[in-house]
Amino acid sequence: MVSPIDPTSTAFLLAENRNQPMHVGGLQLFEKPEGAGRDYVRQMFEEMRDVDAIAPLFLKHPKRSVRTAGQLVWENDDEFDIEHHVRHSALPRPGRVRELLELCGRLHSTRLAWERPLWEAHVIEGLRDGRVAMYTKTHHALVDGISAMRLIQSVLSTDPDKRGMPAPWGVRAAPARAALAEEKAQEQRDLAQVPIQALRTAFGITAEAAGMPGAFVRTLNKGIRNETSALSLFAPRTMFNRSITGSRRFAAQDWPIERLRAIGKASGATLNDVVLAMCSGAVRTYLLELDALPDTPLVAMVPVGLNAKQSQIASAEGGNAVGAVMCKLGTDLADPGDRLAAIHRSMREGKEALSSMTPIQIMAMSALGQAPAILPPLLKMQGIVRPPYNLIISNVPGPRTTHYWNGAKLVGQYPLSIPINGMALNITCTSYDGQMAFGLTGCRRTVPHLQRLLTHLDEEVVALEQAAGV
Amino acid sequence: MVSPIDPTSTAFLLAENRNQPMHVGGLQLFEKPEGAGRDYVRQMFEEMRDVDAIAPLFLKHPKRSVRTAGQLVWENDDEFDIEHHVRHSALPRPGRVRELLELCGRLHSTRLAWERPLWEAHVIEGLRDGRVAMYTKTHHALVDGISAMRLIQSVLSTDPDKRGMPAPWGVRAAPARAALAEEKAQEQRDLAQVPIQALRTAFGITAEAAGMPGAFVRTLNKGIRNETSALSLFAPRTMFNRSITGSRRFAAQDWPIERLRAIGKASGATLNDVVLAMCSGAVRTYLLELDALPDTPLVAMVPVGLNAKQSQIASAEGGNAVGAVMCKLGTDLADPGDRLAAIHRSMREGKEALSSMTPIQIMAMSALGQAPAILPPLLKMQGIVRPPYNLIISNVPGPRTTHYWNGAKLVGQYPLSIPINGMALNITCTSYDGQMAFGLTGCRRTVPHLQRLLTHLDEEVVALEQAAGV
Repeated sequence: MVSPIDPTSTAFLLAENRNQPMHVGGLQLFEKPEGAGRDYVRQMFEEMRDVDAIAPLFLKHPKRSVRTAGQLVWENDDEFDIEHHVRHSALPRPGRVRELLELCGRLHSTRLAWERPLWEAHVIEGLRDGRVAMYTKTHHALVDGISAMRLIQSVLSTDPDKRGMPAPWGVRAAPARAALAEEKAQEQRDLAQVPIQALRTAFGITAEAAGMPGAFVRTLNKGIRNETSALSLFAPRTMFNRSITGSRRFAAQDWPIERLRAIGKASGATLNDVVLAMCSGAVRTYLLELDALPDTPLVAMVPVGLNAKQSQIASAEGGNAVGAVMCKLGTDLADPGDRLAAIHRSMREGKEALSSMTPIQIMAMSALGQAPAILPPLLKMQGIVRPPYNLIISNVPGPRTTHYWNGAKLVGQYPLSIPINGMALNITCTSYDGQMAFGLTGCRRTVPHLQRLLTHLDEEVVALEQAAGV
Repeated sequence: MVSPIDPTSTAFLLAENRNQPMHVGGLQLFEKPEGAGRDYVRQMFEEMRDVDAIAPLFLKHPKRSVRTAGQLVWENDDEFDIEHHVRHSALPRPGRVRELLELCGRLHSTRLAWERPLWEAHVIEGLRDGRVAMYTKTHHALVDGISAMRLIQSVLSTDPDKRGMPAPWGVRAAPARAALAEEKAQEQRDLAQVPIQALRTAFGITAEAAGMPGAFVRTLNKGIRNETSALSLFAPRTMFNRSITGSRRFAAQDWPIERLRAIGKASGATLNDVVLAMCSGAVRTYLLELDALPDTPLVAMVPVGLNAKQSQIASAEGGNAVGAVMCKLGTDLADPGDRLAAIHRSMREGKEALSSMTPIQIMAMSALGQAPAILPPLLKMQGIVRPPYNLIISNVPGPRTTHYWNGAKLVGQYPLSIPINGMALNITCTSYDGQMAFGLTGCRRTVPHLQRLLTHLDEEVVALEQAAGV
């Protein structure tokens, strides 16, 4: 069975090379259910592996054949080998989070083979605190990072006593014949639950752009070259904006949302402003230590949700759209409170600017944010003296309640994203069960000592609390 | 510092693609020294990582730049990151050899990044019997498989009490300034200790062939097309002679040399004949189970050492040369004793044929065996109806005495080789301390259930013992 690959997915496949694997990842941490035995992790691995049937999304792989006139198409893998995709791994002693992040960085560095369906999952044992980790890797041609995490969430339950739950790649419905159509519908429903489902809209547009670079691309190019007023894209050169290698480092940690919200409340800033301020302070300290902080403030590309009125886009999908604010991070300011205030101002202005933009301009911004890897060649960014922004910081809300998988309590989840040439660091945040989780993915060579950013993030929370007087 | 890459190494680099990584590997098993603590493996890993200086071979990476007019050259990695190369890994419970082989297969499946020196080493903990494993991976452009293992052996000692021994990639001599020249000399000495050092001669010739396919390649092509009498290259089509994927499986085990020698003695066959008979019987059973055994016997390409007189090659390196015998494996025969007799005959005839071959024919055979991956495009093998041989079986003698690394006893070592398109299974054997070790490397998809071959090998030893009446 052969099916067409949409132009955006094709673009993500074609943008891939050895230095720039195009997969997203997720790290989930589970607490074993009470009474779990010594072999619990192996059992969990076997449950994940021994599924009755695999959902169609996890069975198809890209293929370019003579039959298809050289076009990339999806084809079902008729020699599907679940043991290649679902793996059992372990951490060396002492089994700290440090060893886990090191392993995730390594696993995130290797490319998915096109000859097989584009995903992998590792059930990981050996954490000294007894928790079980799961690292999953999915090609961006299949899903974007947040949808990938939602896909995993979609098989979880708020009921700790529920059992018999499927693996994320398992077919939910039992009847074999109806399974395919059913699963397709299910997939739609799952994606429909994704708040930022309108990302797909942005993708669709990017696809158009990739397919026919006409007036749209000209608008975008003008924006990047700062020839339009609505898109102010000026950022200093930093060490993050260089060519990357294929190896990765990953760092992740979470903080109680209550602490961040208290800072925001006392400062008149939003939760997202505080998240950005944490990143700003951490990146500032990191660059200062390396004697690499530019005089002018760094600019972060921050995806934001827009309602239909703001976006002026008639959307069949329900009226949501995604825009992007270029946020000046205030990294030139020494005081944490000043930085938070600058970020709050920049975000407010950015959102106001967005609401006065034409739909095509908003779409241009969206496309720029959602498909950074496939746009640069299109936009000939190489010819631009300064990068349009220095890093991408996304913050996507997640479930607020505790979830379980067959009795194992999900206690944390952290996204791994895609560094690309010229954008070596990516910060993606997501909330879960009262915690704000930060996932930092960087090129191992271009962003040395990535882990230091975790310490700096933590220091920044304290500094912001002091500045806000909470 | 930029240095030229010889044509053969260049050919190995260029032959590499996602389905056909061009690195060899080695798996070493160590017993911890007495009194080793809980953190012994971590200490061993740290000793391996924290070397004073890295030998030049392990510092250079291939680079193609505008400055070098697009030519591949070696360049020192001036951002060398030892933590990328030396890694600490662990096995999941129950920590059997099975889990170890699974991990080695996975590690052997990923390509080395050209932007860094072309090697990796993993110190692996978690074997339930308390042993420590080390998996090393080195690009074929740096060393061939056996030399890679010898390089590791070269830092070992027969003295269990010796300490302060360097890692295989560490510079042996202390003075930093003299280190480079010293190490180069050392490297030469180490390679000089390799009995099959003359492989390099074969490589050199292959390189010439790759550089200028003239009379030599015509001779080779004639041989493959069976138009010369000396090179009889006819083998049936088998499932091993298909396109491969990028994923690997690895299986390894050893048997007491005494048992194999006793079989040979009672049957009038050599030790190598018995090794080949084991492979023959195992492959026969494997193919029978899959209903895929051809009617005509499989042909193995078996590299053999030749003395100067046999090879008629005036060699500056000391008179050794390597030839290749195309051995009919007798897989059409049901009786193990008959198979051993057929193999013994085929090997004897092959060696006799070799001694009557012209030097250019011998070199052609050698090149064919040593550089299978780079020759097919050269020889337009695709146009040939039948493969010249079905698999490669090498058997290279190793040290006969027990060796140690800082008190850790080496109890086994197993080579991992390179499956290529059309040659999905490779069997490499090496002896050590009274044991004959088999390393089987196969494409995970093309050679399913590779591990079964271990069982079949073991059954074959028993069957051969019975047939020989020992």
